[in-house]
Amino acid sequence: MSAAEATPVQTPGAANDRPTVGVTAPLGFVAGAASAGIKAASGGLSQAPGQLDVAVLYSEQPATAAAVFTTNKVKAAPVVISQLNLANGMARALVVNAGNANACTGSQGFKDALVMGKVCADTLDLDPAEVLVASTGVIGRLLPMDILRDGIVAAAHGLGPAGGDTVARAIMTTDTLSKQAGASFEYAGRTYRVGGMAKGSGMIHLNMATMLGFVTTDAAVPALELGQVLRRCADRSFNMVTIDGDMSTNDTLAIFANGAAGGALMVPGAGLEELEAALLGVCIDLSRQLAGDGEGASRLFTVLVRGAASEEDARMMARTVASSNLVKTAIHGGDPNWGRIVAALGRAGGELVLDRLSVTIGDAIVFQNGAGMSELDLEQVRAAFESDEVSIVCDLGLGDAEATAYGCDLTAEYVHINADYTT
Amino acid sequence: MSAAEATPVQTPGAANDRPTVGVTAPLGFVAGAASAGIKAASGGLSQAPGQLDVAVLYSEQPATAAAVFTTNKVKAAPVVISQLNLANGMARALVVNAGNANACTGSQGFKDALVMGKVCADTLDLDPAEVLVASTGVIGRLLPMDILRDGIVAAAHGLGPAGGDTVARAIMTTDTLSKQAGASFEYAGRTYRVGGMAKGSGMIHLNMATMLGFVTTDAAVPALELGQVLRRCADRSFNMVTIDGDMSTNDTLAIFANGAAGGALMVPGAGLEELEAALLGVCIDLSRQLAGDGEGASRLFTVLVRGAASEEDARMMARTVASSNLVKTAIHGGDPNWGRIVAALGRAGGELVLDRLSVTIGDAIVFQNGAGMSELDLEQVRAAFESDEVSIVCDLGLGDAEATAYGCDLTAEYVHINADYTT
Repeated sequence: MSAAEATPVQTPGAANDRPTVGVTAPLGFVAGAASAGIKAASGGLSQAPGQLDVAVLYSEQPATAAAVFTTNKVKAAPVVISQLNLANGMARALVVNAGNANACTGSQGFKDALVMGKVCADTLDLDPAEVLVASTGVIGRLLPMDILRDGIVAAAHGLGPAGGDTVARAIMTTDTLSKQAGASFEYAGRTYRVGGMAKGSGMIHLNMATMLGFVTTDAAVPALELGQVLRRCADRSFNMVTIDGDMSTNDTLAIFANGAAGGALMVPGAGLEELEAALLGVCIDLSRQLAGDGEGASRLFTVLVRGAASEEDARMMARTVASSNLVKTAIHGGDPNWGRIVAALGRAGGELVLDRLSVTIGDAIVFQNGAGMSELDLEQVRAAFESDEVSIVCDLGLGDAEATAYGCDLTAEYVHINADYTT
Repeated sequence: MSAAEATPVQTPGAANDRPTVGVTAPLGFVAGAASAGIKAASGGLSQAPGQLDVAVLYSEQPATAAAVFTTNKVKAAPVVISQLNLANGMARALVVNAGNANACTGSQGFKDALVMGKVCADTLDLDPAEVLVASTGVIGRLLPMDILRDGIVAAAHGLGPAGGDTVARAIMTTDTLSKQAGASFEYAGRTYRVGGMAKGSGMIHLNMATMLGFVTTDAAVPALELGQVLRRCADRSFNMVTIDGDMSTNDTLAIFANGAAGGALMVPGAGLEELEAALLGVCIDLSRQLAGDGEGASRLFTVLVRGAASEEDARMMARTVASSNLVKTAIHGGDPNWGRIVAALGRAGGELVLDRLSVTIGDAIVFQNGAGMSELDLEQVRAAFESDEVSIVCDLGLGDAEATAYGCDLTAEYVHINADYTT
């Protein structure tokens, strides 16, 4: 990491040896992971020898930062600590552990979260207030601090520009795949990068909490604008993912902007829109990966509600359809049950005029003019339901607003995973 | 039904040959059912030969009536017709079919619902505006009116005071058991009766809509007070049942009060409180039967939230816990995952102070003082989860309000039932 180690062609931290996806795709970010044995020590999840479970992300220069957190009134200790540390809009590092959520752990949990940040800060020569802390895993058990401390130090000593891939794996709990995305954009003659990673969404497998998402960019953005952009993107991506309707105590989406690509501060009318478009693309990519990897899921589906009277209506109605157990099981079974979709739209609460509604599954219109299509080609609908990604479009015919929700089917496997746990 | 058929000891309509449960338990109500073949003709549900699917309920004297209906914006035609007919607070009869919900059926659906009421009214020599109409079954298919018409006439010709049992069976769709309840109370030297029946709740199996509940009483109650009492009771019973979170297009709970037991009009301070207590008991009994017979359910559970800051908070939080897929699967698996209960309380939106919360499963306190119990007897909790009726009590420690929700576990069987339908 030091300048002494650099060479003109292979500068660590330069673009040419960086991945195109993940949190170390943007310039000036390095990351490292370690295997501390948290999952094994906390119970509830098996852990293969050497399986990574601690991650550290570090910005080589000061960065603005912002985050959105769970709105659950039961907030895990690391969420509260990170909220406090973000008060000034700056952060340099992030420390995350998987296997133990440090939630419902009382005052000891807060001390432990503070210690996590302090160990990371000491190792990187930072102030603890510059470190964000996140945890995911079992609820209600104290962190095994001895082994976690060693893991944080080891992860921080292994930082590198190629570390994005390992940290994406280290934050996994029941995810079957690690999730990374990346984008770049040009503004005023420069190239900027956005990279991100995420893990398990909307599910609390065996009390395994949490959607965690972390995004980096080498653009320079004032903290206020960074937070605004992040919230807008989250509303159109992570907040539109629904796996099982449960919300974790630990959900966190954080962004760091370090300006390592140079150029002026991005503000509205001067690059911020381009950044937002790239960030939204990264967030949607990660959200689709989250829905597709939902617990026990065999199939991703998207629900586009358009022609809505307001974006709030569109968002609420798309989410309601995507989270309906009956729609989810119908998709699992490849069953063209448009009645379930219409009934879910009806209970969502947004403005709805049945005679103006049309519902399309794949390429087939299944509902129009207040009634199901009498000449419906059930085989066409069934084939659409059985594709890897099912597309449901509900046109309300009322206005111009639209929103897309991302869901997965509900399978017997989901029930088995969540019922057959032995504490 | 005519006085000519009466004898002093065995008067049809008198108390001594009436059942103690069901809609013909109160004096002056008669009911009859018929098998029209609606289920077989509408697809989606198999129908055994002779299986009942049309029900008629009739009050021998004028009655006040009130109802609460689905708040889904997609309302089936019979719901709209019944709402109109209840505008004057009076009704004498009810006609119901099972097997076809007459929902999303356009203008033809409204005509068919009107014809249902008219055929019933003509057979009973009533005005069509005195007849409530309800349907439950497949969404989006037109009623087979020819056979339904014959079925209504047959049901109306078979009316009798012992008919409560047959009509409770005739309104079933995917229910495995018919559901009836009854209560009686004394006021001012007289005995009054309340009886009711219900079918399948909160589930739309194969697009099979609907919770239907029908209650009768031989007390005399002004229509306004009757509606108020019914809404309060529904809020504490049927509205606290959650099977899968979906809400049907046809949900209806109606009450008839015919005054056949004599006595003065019941108003606040003069019998109405006694009636409400009896009615609430009947509604809770039916609600428990509904939850226990949820699709694929193996186990009923209750969630009592007490010590809440407001009854609205208590209701919302109890419902949120009872409808959490993660809590439902944990109960199915007999898994003492208190973290899922705490996380569901946290996202429900009511006032919550973690340090004041205690959670009890069966007889075991599992969460207290902001953390899980370290000395938790997991076997005790597991045994509680594995009883036929699991009791979860969440004491918020904030106020005096409380509410109970009724739920059922989520099983792989639920997924199979709802996924493996062939249209």
